[in-house]
Amino acid sequence: MLNWDNMFATRSTRMRASEIRELLKLLDRPDIISFAGGIPDPGLFPDKEFKQAYADIFDSAAVNSALQYSVSEGYKPLREWLVKQMADLGIPCELDNVFIVSGSQQGLDYLGKLFLSPNDTALVTWPTYLGALQAFNAYEPSYDQLTPGGNRTPDSYREAASQKGGKVKFAYLSADFSNPTGETVDREGREKVLDLAEELDIAVIEDAAYQSLRYDGDPIPPILALEIARKGHINNTRTIYCGSFSKTLAPGLRVGFIVANAPVIRKLVLMKQAADLHSSTINQMAISEVAERGFDAQVAKIRAAYSHRRNCMLAALEKYMPAGTSWTKPEGGMFIWVTLPKGMDGAELLAKSLESAKVAFVPGKAFFADGSGANTFRVSFSCANEKMIEEGISRLGKLIASEIG
Amino acid sequence: MLNWDNMFATRSTRMRASEIRELLKLLDRPDIISFAGGIPDPGLFPDKEFKQAYADIFDSAAVNSALQYSVSEGYKPLREWLVKQMADLGIPCELDNVFIVSGSQQGLDYLGKLFLSPNDTALVTWPTYLGALQAFNAYEPSYDQLTPGGNRTPDSYREAASQKGGKVKFAYLSADFSNPTGETVDREGREKVLDLAEELDIAVIEDAAYQSLRYDGDPIPPILALEIARKGHINNTRTIYCGSFSKTLAPGLRVGFIVANAPVIRKLVLMKQAADLHSSTINQMAISEVAERGFDAQVAKIRAAYSHRRNCMLAALEKYMPAGTSWTKPEGGMFIWVTLPKGMDGAELLAKSLESAKVAFVPGKAFFADGSGANTFRVSFSCANEKMIEEGISRLGKLIASEIG
Repeated sequence: MLNWDNMFATRSTRMRASEIRELLKLLDRPDIISFAGGIPDPGLFPDKEFKQAYADIFDSAAVNSALQYSVSEGYKPLREWLVKQMADLGIPCELDNVFIVSGSQQGLDYLGKLFLSPNDTALVTWPTYLGALQAFNAYEPSYDQLTPGGNRTPDSYREAASQKGGKVKFAYLSADFSNPTGETVDREGREKVLDLAEELDIAVIEDAAYQSLRYDGDPIPPILALEIARKGHINNTRTIYCGSFSKTLAPGLRVGFIVANAPVIRKLVLMKQAADLHSSTINQMAISEVAERGFDAQVAKIRAAYSHRRNCMLAALEKYMPAGTSWTKPEGGMFIWVTLPKGMDGAELLAKSLESAKVAFVPGKAFFADGSGANTFRVSFSCANEKMIEEGISRLGKLIASEIG
Repeated sequence: MLNWDNMFATRSTRMRASEIRELLKLLDRPDIISFAGGIPDPGLFPDKEFKQAYADIFDSAAVNSALQYSVSEGYKPLREWLVKQMADLGIPCELDNVFIVSGSQQGLDYLGKLFLSPNDTALVTWPTYLGALQAFNAYEPSYDQLTPGGNRTPDSYREAASQKGGKVKFAYLSADFSNPTGETVDREGREKVLDLAEELDIAVIEDAAYQSLRYDGDPIPPILALEIARKGHINNTRTIYCGSFSKTLAPGLRVGFIVANAPVIRKLVLMKQAADLHSSTINQMAISEVAERGFDAQVAKIRAAYSHRRNCMLAALEKYMPAGTSWTKPEGGMFIWVTLPKGMDGAELLAKSLESAKVAFVPGKAFFADGSGANTFRVSFSCANEKMIEEGISRLGKLIASEIG
């Protein structure tokens, strides 16, 4: 065997296996009740609509373009649909502000690639989306803690970044029903993030993967909408909005999007041209057709189903979790975040749980850029039915109670 | 407007617009005969087979998995088909040697990301595939000239790389009917590349995008096959084989593959997980079904069509090109490479040609990592019919003759 580690670039040392991905394999074990995955319920996919969309493409004159190379910025009718959709969210924009990527995960990878030189600093919440840390890690950044409601001075961020040998480049956050906590940043918190970004002269990456999945409470304008309200036009803003069809239509097509000022979009298009030419033409056409015909009805269907599951899980947690534990009360999304008493370890609990209680979840530590958060874990309700939730949370509550002793 | 250039990573300065991509826009002008694009003829796409494949997926129990997230290494039945296919090419391998990417362009991006730290050296031919230079540029390498039949000493490469502040990391080449020249590296040249890689202890990236498109002459074993013959097992080899379905089935689905030793594949899988999770599930399934049912027949159909067009173009060049020009005689692929008399400039010729002769091609300079090659250009015969070829090459020949004077 060759010594490949000698040949790889230094960045490769930060590419490690994902705990969540390893855990997903457990979904196949029928004896385990899994709240680990963060995947949408396939029973809610608009499969009939997709079937029709692909059939229509093959029966139309567009079939040759569907199978051919296409432009790096993405399929124009889909981008046009997104322009209308964004306007409804308070984000007026033009076609050259919209860019199609192969899932919003690719958007995060490209943004890491665009902004981060080694030792630059990315601001992320503690905890944050694990996939964002994995995407950014390839570009060898440091991390510092973003606290949307907090009062840390811009200078303290600047100094910390400078000590690490780089500059603060962006603040990354998911403001709505974030993975992993399910929590939402309120309007004041969003405005403060914008203030901080303004003072540091950095970009804001707004991960809106779960934004459509609100079950109750009033919608809060996206950060990009708030910034357009300040600056008058999207081309004057520093917020880069990353959206996804994976939670609303289907993830298997790998279609997501970025909406941002034109100079950033132009650079991202060049980057994509060099990295994978373009996202699948036929899938962009299928997504476009399904979205055009019934996006709102599909989102309403998902909201109704997930909202009920969230209610069940919150009720079960209330019923079965012992004193000393606490959890978030999300207004949307797919996740609830549980905090165990200090000193307890979510990873150790998982090992015991798989052994005895037969319930899977994701230990929280991996979501913290500083390796803290050992006494936390994430549960997802998106793929669980009422009975599984009642039974699984009951078993888990008993296990935790016996651990607390 | 914000000063984004101040915020971007240093690597972004090397992301520039592609001349070829800009030129592709000319394909839409009906008054231009274009030999510029390197795209497959959509008239040859197996669209009926793809229509059936998508319909079958939606009518089967697999529909939910087709629309769902899937594993980063790729769809297992497609990887199994590739294992058989590679065995026929003299490359015995196992499932864990095969990895699906979103087009072989993505494979090149990932390999740049895996191997290249800034100032490392990549060995490429002069000229080489422009898309490879674009993919690698994001990782800020230097380039040195690979001459497959040549005799430059390993030390001279090592010293040059060291002077540029890094190490030689890999040799990249397309050994069969390469883009842009259409030329093939003979068996001795392939063995010499392996010898050099061995002495330098570097990887070999074999871009096999056009390998299936041989029209005459005897097939030469892939570099990876030659190395397996030396080393006994793929897991002992250093050659990384990048394959594509874009030239054989269809590019619009964005499905390509990498075949290599297991340690490299494992690292690439982790990289993909962080970069875009996985390639489109449904498209991998469709490609798998179409390949399984009739890959060889489809390749035979394409070969017959392109072979005829290559013959027409070679005959037209013979008939119309003035003395002082020369061109390659490819045994396959999509391209012929024309060399003009020294001092002439392909880019200036293109400007004049679009004005008067109304014929498009790609000036050669962009394919040279050192910026040389101004007196060359690439013509593609893949999308041209007999009449277009006769007329276009005739006009081009007259223009060049008048320029030579």
